[in-house]
Amino acid sequence: MPSDTLRIPFDELHATLRRVLQRSGFTGERADLCARLFAESSRDGVSSHGLNRFPRFMQMIRSGVVDVHAQPVRVGARGGVERWDGRRGPGNLNAYAAMDRAIALSREHGVGCVALGNTNHWMRGGTYGWQAADAGAIGICWTNTLPNMPAWGGSTPAIGNNPLVIAVPRAAGHVVLDVAMSQFSVGALTAYRTRGERLPVAGGYDMTGTLTQDPNAIEASGRLLPIGFWKGSGLAVMLDLIATLLSGGLATCQIPPTPETETGLSQMFIAFDAGSLASAGAAPLVDRVVDHLHASARGGETITYPGERTLATRRQNIELGVPVDSQIWETVLTVAGE
Amino acid sequence: MPSDTLRIPFDELHATLRRVLQRSGFTGERADLCARLFAESSRDGVSSHGLNRFPRFMQMIRSGVVDVHAQPVRVGARGGVERWDGRRGPGNLNAYAAMDRAIALSREHGVGCVALGNTNHWMRGGTYGWQAADAGAIGICWTNTLPNMPAWGGSTPAIGNNPLVIAVPRAAGHVVLDVAMSQFSVGALTAYRTRGERLPVAGGYDMTGTLTQDPNAIEASGRLLPIGFWKGSGLAVMLDLIATLLSGGLATCQIPPTPETETGLSQMFIAFDAGSLASAGAAPLVDRVVDHLHASARGGETITYPGERTLATRRQNIELGVPVDSQIWETVLTVAGE
Repeated sequence: MPSDTLRIPFDELHATLRRVLQRSGFTGERADLCARLFAESSRDGVSSHGLNRFPRFMQMIRSGVVDVHAQPVRVGARGGVERWDGRRGPGNLNAYAAMDRAIALSREHGVGCVALGNTNHWMRGGTYGWQAADAGAIGICWTNTLPNMPAWGGSTPAIGNNPLVIAVPRAAGHVVLDVAMSQFSVGALTAYRTRGERLPVAGGYDMTGTLTQDPNAIEASGRLLPIGFWKGSGLAVMLDLIATLLSGGLATCQIPPTPETETGLSQMFIAFDAGSLASAGAAPLVDRVVDHLHASARGGETITYPGERTLATRRQNIELGVPVDSQIWETVLTVAGE
Repeated sequence: MPSDTLRIPFDELHATLRRVLQRSGFTGERADLCARLFAESSRDGVSSHGLNRFPRFMQMIRSGVVDVHAQPVRVGARGGVERWDGRRGPGNLNAYAAMDRAIALSREHGVGCVALGNTNHWMRGGTYGWQAADAGAIGICWTNTLPNMPAWGGSTPAIGNNPLVIAVPRAAGHVVLDVAMSQFSVGALTAYRTRGERLPVAGGYDMTGTLTQDPNAIEASGRLLPIGFWKGSGLAVMLDLIATLLSGGLATCQIPPTPETETGLSQMFIAFDAGSLASAGAAPLVDRVVDHLHASARGGETITYPGERTLATRRQNIELGVPVDSQIWETVLTVAGE
């Protein structure tokens, strides 16, 4: 850890964020859940969408982009599919409610889908994958974003990097994937830059159009690289189209293009009732696939399943305390009135 | 076109393949559909899974891997989700039936899902995306494969490159994405090698573990590169898990590891009834996203939406005839008794 990182007990982090949110007008349960989701993101090693993102979230409440009091409402339903309007409420609360509803629908219909429009940034996408798996459901969800990546063949941001989350429950640790359609998420790019590190592989283009591992050069050009070049570009377009069509919300090209004003996002939440759908051999099968992955590593190689490192980080941070940036933590403490 | 490529009218290609299939025991409608799906793949520019794949398909019928007469049967149902057993019948007929059923379920439940186990290679995955979009449905489908790609961190094939297809209907041309989780599909790699071309970007590792654009070196090492490195590896694992859990079929690690014996695949087919779910503004919205993509290209750049090139190729091949490899075509004509 850099020298300006402290470790704070999870419960203290959660309680402090909750107090700040209460002062911003969040009522009891909503303050508790919203604070918990931020705290859990830091606890799981994704501080870019945990504590480090909290100041901007507060700023977007003050600027009116995020409506603290708005709750999502159902505006359409057909069998296992529902359309909800997020009414520009807090993005993580809206997304949590949407996945919760998708899980409930899946218990009735085998599969449940919620298309959520008019919402705000959901912070860490993986949150809703872990949520589904904790409930015994297979979860798939994605969000669109502001235009932050050129389409394949282009050089100006035109599509979103539209994170996709897929989760499968497993007793010994859920299998959870959380991937943006860019080689590095915007948060990951910022984290590398802040640490003064180069990217492990090329993550975008510099101003001259050359692939680079320098996060500064990519932030300057705005040219994030899609995963698999044309493939990630195409995937991002399809995810945007489906979330937008089914939610009746805004497509990436209609979303305000600056992070401070990004709102009106469209998201999809799909759940399968794994408990009743999967065969009796389901649990052994997931373990078998995980064991096979591990066993395919040869001398000196390390192969992990999606979610494995998150779980290791979580266990460590619960034991030792959650790493927080001391400056951000001081600011939050001040606002919390301590 | 290389000198050994002929152009054959689509109807002639279709009729010839149909006659060969009839001689192999396919009955009327099944012979017609199976032949059409192969012919359409060549027509759409994917000859690797069209005519060029036909001889191996015939060989797998002779070897007993593919059972010409087997038809899929439903083995479980819960609301909008059904589980089907493909009984190791022809993979393209099974997949077509599964997507057809998912579309029918979506008309009843808003969303329809068919998990198909115990099936064979579906040939061109895009086929089932175009099928859904032609029926006015949003389609999502994927398949697992034999182990043909090392997991991220490993060097021996342990996971499948599990192609994923996503389709959205559009009057002026459907938006259809068909992507393997490797940077190049096995068919694409073979096509580059056959043409004596290098890959446009690195597609895998050579025997020394160095990234390379040489298709020969990648085929020799068996080390396909996942799209987005760790991200494509994780996506492939998740797609395998979901298809396997919901179908009750085999995971990649349980599938016979040689192309000639690859069978018992697990696949997922999801359809959304776009016509009734999407708002009245749906059609303009898809056009708007496509127009925005095109408009984001600056001087000298070319940006296409997923499916755009397929449609251009299709139109050209319908007009000029479908390009076929003359040697393969001669062989097929002989078997057809002409």
